Amino acid sequence: MAITLGPNQYGKAEVRLVTVEREGPVRHLRDLTVSTSLRGRLERTHLTGDNTDVVATDTQKNTVYAFAKEKRVGEIEDFALRLGRHFVGSFEQITGARVLISEHGWDRIDVGGTPHDHAFSRAGGEQRTTAVTIQDDRAWVVSGLTDLVVLKSTGSEFHGFPRDRYTTLAETDDRILATAVTARWRYRSTDLDWSGSFTEIRRILLETFATKHSLSLQQTLYAMGEAVLEERDEVAEVRLSLPNKHHFLVDLSPFGLTNDNEVFYAADRPYGLIEGTVLRDDEDPKDAELAWYTLPAF
Amino acid sequence: MAITLGPNQYGKAEVRLVTVEREGPVRHLRDLTVSTSLRGRLERTHLTGDNTDVVATDTQKNTVYAFAKEKRVGEIEDFALRLGRHFVGSFEQITGARVLISEHGWDRIDVGGTPHDHAFSRAGGEQRTTAVTIQDDRAWVVSGLTDLVVLKSTGSEFHGFPRDRYTTLAETDDRILATAVTARWRYRSTDLDWSGSFTEIRRILLETFATKHSLSLQQTLYAMGEAVLEERDEVAEVRLSLPNKHHFLVDLSPFGLTNDNEVFYAADRPYGLIEGTVLRDDEDPKDAELAWYTLPAF
Amino acid sequence: MAITLGPNQYGKAEVRLVTVEREGPVRHLRDLTVSTSLRGRLERTHLTGDNTDVVATDTQKNTVYAFAKEKRVGEIEDFALRLGRHFVGSFEQITGARVLISEHGWDRIDVGGTPHDHAFSRAGGEQRTTAVTIQDDRAWVVSGLTDLVVLKSTGSEFHGFPRDRYTTLAETDDRILATAVTARWRYRSTDLDWSGSFTEIRRILLETFATKHSLSLQQTLYAMGEAVLEERDEVAEVRLSLPNKHHFLVDLSPFGLTNDNEVFYAADRPYGLIEGTVLRDDEDPKDAELAWYTLPAF
Amino acid sequence: MAITLGPNQYGKAEVRLVTVEREGPVRHLRDLTVSTSLRGRLERTHLTGDNTDVVATDTQKNTVYAFAKEKRVGEIEDFALRLGRHFVGSFEQITGARVLISEHGWDRIDVGGTPHDHAFSRAGGEQRTTAVTIQDDRAWVVSGLTDLVVLKSTGSEFHGFPRDRYTTLAETDDRILATAVTARWRYRSTDLDWSGSFTEIRRILLETFATKHSLSLQQTLYAMGEAVLEERDEVAEVRLSLPNKHHFLVDLSPFGLTNDNEVFYAADRPYGLIEGTVLRDDEDPKDAELAWYTLPAF
Repeated sequence: MAITLGPNQYGKAEVRLVTVEREGPVRHLRDLTVSTSLRGRLERTHLTGDNTDVVATDTQKNTVYAFAKEKRVGEIEDFALRLGRHFVGSFEQITGARVLISEHGWDRIDVGGTPHDHAFSRAGGEQRTTAVTIQDDRAWVVSGLTDLVVLKSTGSEFHGFPRDRYTTLAETDDRILATAVTARWRYRSTDLDWSGSFTEIRRILLETFATKHSLSLQQTLYAMGEAVLEERDEVAEVRLSLPNKHHFLVDLSPFGLTNDNEVFYAADRPYGLIEGTVLRDDEDPKDAELAWYTLPAF
Repeated sequence: MAITLGPNQYGKAEVRLVTVEREGPVRHLRDLTVSTSLRGRLERTHLTGDNTDVVATDTQKNTVYAFAKEKRVGEIEDFALRLGRHFVGSFEQITGARVLISEHGWDRIDVGGTPHDHAFSRAGGEQRTTAVTIQDDRAWVVSGLTDLVVLKSTGSEFHGFPRDRYTTLAETDDRILATAVTARWRYRSTDLDWSGSFTEIRRILLETFATKHSLSLQQTLYAMGEAVLEERDEVAEVRLSLPNKHHFLVDLSPFGLTNDNEVFYAADRPYGLIEGTVLRDDEDPKDAELAWYTLPAF
Repeated sequence: MAITLGPNQYGKAEVRLVTVEREGPVRHLRDLTVSTSLRGRLERTHLTGDNTDVVATDTQKNTVYAFAKEKRVGEIEDFALRLGRHFVGSFEQITGARVLISEHGWDRIDVGGTPHDHAFSRAGGEQRTTAVTIQDDRAWVVSGLTDLVVLKSTGSEFHGFPRDRYTTLAETDDRILATAVTARWRYRSTDLDWSGSFTEIRRILLETFATKHSLSLQQTLYAMGEAVLEERDEVAEVRLSLPNKHHFLVDLSPFGLTNDNEVFYAADRPYGLIEGTVLRDDEDPKDAELAWYTLPAF
Repeated sequence: MAITLGPNQYGKAEVRLVTVEREGPVRHLRDLTVSTSLRGRLERTHLTGDNTDVVATDTQKNTVYAFAKEKRVGEIEDFALRLGRHFVGSFEQITGARVLISEHGWDRIDVGGTPHDHAFSRAGGEQRTTAVTIQDDRAWVVSGLTDLVVLKSTGSEFHGFPRDRYTTLAETDDRILATAVTARWRYRSTDLDWSGSFTEIRRILLETFATKHSLSLQQTLYAMGEAVLEERDEVAEVRLSLPNKHHFLVDLSPFGLTNDNEVFYAADRPYGLIEGTVLRDDEDPKDAELAWYTLPAF
């Protein structure tokens, strides 16, 4: 038995990149957080501290900034592919790269009914994301969104679950259903109308959440993924993580008051957490394992 | 010399209240975080642990929930006034109250071009706030907003500042100006069209930020406050806290690239912090000191 | 009626400063977060954007770093006094300064029973703080600590509070009492053994929390402040902010189990918040108002 | 092609559990955050909303609290194993479970040199963790720690890395090395002296960080994992995630000052991120894949 180096990666996390492009008097703003990580033949630095193979994380950061200037950012998927392919293509020992990008939205400030040329307000906590993985000459694109907080004030039930000695939850046929959607979907191609696809998938997720009468958050999750796959051929697989942000009915009876689903307490912790994958049955999830590969989180 | 009790207050912080109101098939959603604190003759509990005077913070929380049911929430200013007056009016030893409310916005989800009856998505990090102070038979209303993140990609300069041996900052006639606006304004009355006033003040703040050519963030701050006071008679005083969220131009020259205000690094810390008050000169700030009174923060 | 500039200040917030000093092979580490703000005749920048009076916040940051080198940091109170006096003394238009410093502790890593010369581990979330205010030729020092999280598993009661129609809380003669102490105390002098004083005051606060049998958190608060004032002549006034971090007994009766103060649920929100001042009765709080002055928070 | 349900799990996240045990006048405090998730034949709820198979997350939470009373908590690994085996053993459709527990440390408050019986102060941000996975009749235990923030003020170099057109970083033979250690190690057994093992592994990680002269953070990472495996037979594999918390030397030359590794700026973002696995070469990582399995994060 000997001790050996297993899977590893390294890079620069959370490079904050803001770009401004001009189009006559109009400015276009992009606001990204970019993380890069590289994999490959990296035994030397781990075992002896010989850094001959280590593309410095500072260099990775510089490359992000230089690429933003040299060839515009464009869609985050294209920018991530370009960065990942650069690292794998430029350094023999680097055989794989993962590039994560979050895009933060900005709206133009409205002045007297007209969107302003160069003044913006931040569009909320939701972010558009992509995770691009390069391994040798293959590439995968997994895009998504995070922190899309949604709530249905009715149209949600939960009953019929098993009761054991630890079960006290009452069955309900009318509850608030609220969650902060993290969705990630794996594309079947690396050359798509990324922006158009994102817009449609986001619309489908929202409309399905709104209109699907819910008997469980699991059912809602599946319906959201299924709707994306039914409408969007370019998507192979959808993964959703849906925290159940509980809204508990306040017991007003001690005060002689009824509470007909009117007054709720929004709880912080604990929360339910529903996670699942919806995919096409001709897709082998093993095949795309690397697309989701990460280290060393749980 | 003896040791004695000085200013003090106590209450329940961050009661998370969500209400749903029905109007036929349409539901209306309100999402508030309410904090109450009480002041008065509270020596006994401090000196001896005799709680005869202590309206329990749990009771304060219950009152928030019960009032939400008994008389609808309405505008946050009215809800806060009602709560504060209840506590001061119901308990002889309670001579003052402060009620802070933050309102979190929600938008209706759009389904096929139509806003949905009962499904919502969260409207971002910005919050509408109010701080109502009751002291005996007087009341002050200080409303505001927080976390309104705005950015101008041009139209901002900074030069002419003094240079000493510690000054290295270059002068600039074109920089990004970005901030997260916290604004609070003191109303001259406790009976107003709160919602209409808020909407207009928010509009004025945004439009002034967008259109005022800026020579310093202080100038922008003053212009924002001044514009509110000029247009809105109901406001006595505006206080603004504007962190200067620095966006530094990335030096691309080592890569043989120019950077004509195109590529920026958005820094986290440190940040500039500009704070100021704009008020009418016939207002005595001492007169309204209690409206801003807090304990024991810096 | 005209519109005018009221109280204002500006500066650089959260300058992250780490220093290393050598003493033979041994290194001493200091880890500070420094915020400076300046006040004075600053009408010109606000009203016209003329920055002749504006000591740039970047210059303030540079001064922090340069002073750390030029004369060592020393105790945070002395470092803050030196910085504040520099700004007020060097610029005619700057008549006041406030310097806030938080110190983050580090412990030496123990290797085979011996503290290591130059390797450290962070000492937890608690921070030692100071807030120094300079106004013309006067100075005040308010030091403190924050995020000192403490808990008593017994020795705390709460009963005898008034009951109205909104009261449901049961009385208890045995509960968990937990809080995150923020304490600030105003010194009577600007020339003291700051480190010795801090160590003793922290010890007194902790011992009093531990040993004082508590009938209310207010009583505990007063006892903590009183004990400091009784033992430490150099302190004029103590302010405490004590969130009541509720630990609720879990109702295990549905599972046929008792719960004799054994199993608790630690709640996040809402929480009680108890704030108060303990001071010497020959101290006029108005006299030191500026020591606590801030803008424009609640 | 059809659409189908892929990997999924659900449960209750972040149940905050505090327990108090008595031993004469002495109280023992435990402070845990427990998350459970279940896997199995869960198609019905996803596809039709039939919840016959869904052990409610509320029931999972109740079980955590009831188990804490029924059989004491004990070591977090044993508590997690007991919970996971209960769910898989009690419900036919539940074939797998994952239980994550973080333990927050508390120290006894020292009163006059004696640790107090029932008063405690929180021991800092570091947490002891475990992640137990049950699949049918197999079980894996992966324990660890998180947020152990450490810093070496010297004894760290970084040079010899490749230079391309985007490289500007200077080589250094003396820098600050700082990181927040997240370590997770997979045990080879499910029946061990968990507490003794944890104490020793933590000691080895800290001592190796302190004493290993570092030529790269990767080398430090490997050395830390290797040392654990060399000394602790019960460990099969160690995974480490080490953010490189950059401390940049402040350029004091504009002020006519030198900076001989004395004054540093501690940066927030971006940061390097070094992640890696150290394992025994007779271990097949595929064999334990489920021990690390999670959904749907990157």
